Amino acid sequence: MATEFKHLVVAKFKDGVAVEGLLKEMEKMASEIDSVMSFEWGQDIESLEMLRQGFTHAFLMIFKSKEDFAAFAGHPKHVEFSATFSTAIDKVVVLDFPAVLAKPPA
Amino acid sequence: MATEFKHLVVAKFKDGVAVEGLLKEMEKMASEIDSVMSFEWGQDIESLEMLRQGFTHAFLMIFKSKEDFAAFAGHPKHVEFSATFSTAIDKVVVLDFPAVLAKPPA
Repeated sequence: MATEFKHLVVAKFKDGVAVEGLLKEMEKMASEIDSVMSFEWGQDIESLEMLRQGFTHAFLMIFKSKEDFAAFAGHPKHVEFSATFSTAIDKVVVLDFPAVLAKPPA
Repeated sequence: MATEFKHLVVAKFKDGVAVEGLLKEMEKMASEIDSVMSFEWGQDIESLEMLRQGFTHAFLMIFKSKEDFAAFAGHPKHVEFSATFSTAIDKVVVLDFPAVLAKPPA
């Protein structure tokens, strides 16, 4: 199996941000950029605050290759969305990595 | 498609920690606990330090359901590994969430 490349964003939004609307914009952006192979996200419901540290959402975009990720990173629709996103967040962690599939689904 | 449940850990290790050995232990733990449907991880190679904020690794365990995640969380092998892991990390963020697949793979 080819190594997928992943773009992970963990975020805490500022108070008062309309998160639902921002999520819709993000889903639209991901759907419109062809090099995004798949996109999933989630809102924490289980972690302890000590471990969550205020972060509430995880966003994971998956690419066929590092080159596809680079095409996404520089895509005007991504750049435009990132500008909006950065004004909405209180804090963020971003990791970009080739995924190692240590235990494949059965 | 059923909603998968995900356990995401983003970590920065302490200086001097033998990360390779710890990764092997984590892979062994994931492979030995049946409720872990799949496990993948990655080491950041692309993000800007401003966005990465010292974090280097992401670990993502995937479960068929929240119940399977709960079985994993309380599993003795996970509890034992977590104790080892917690001594090795400088900082960590953990999010546990039902995944929303906003853009499925084509």
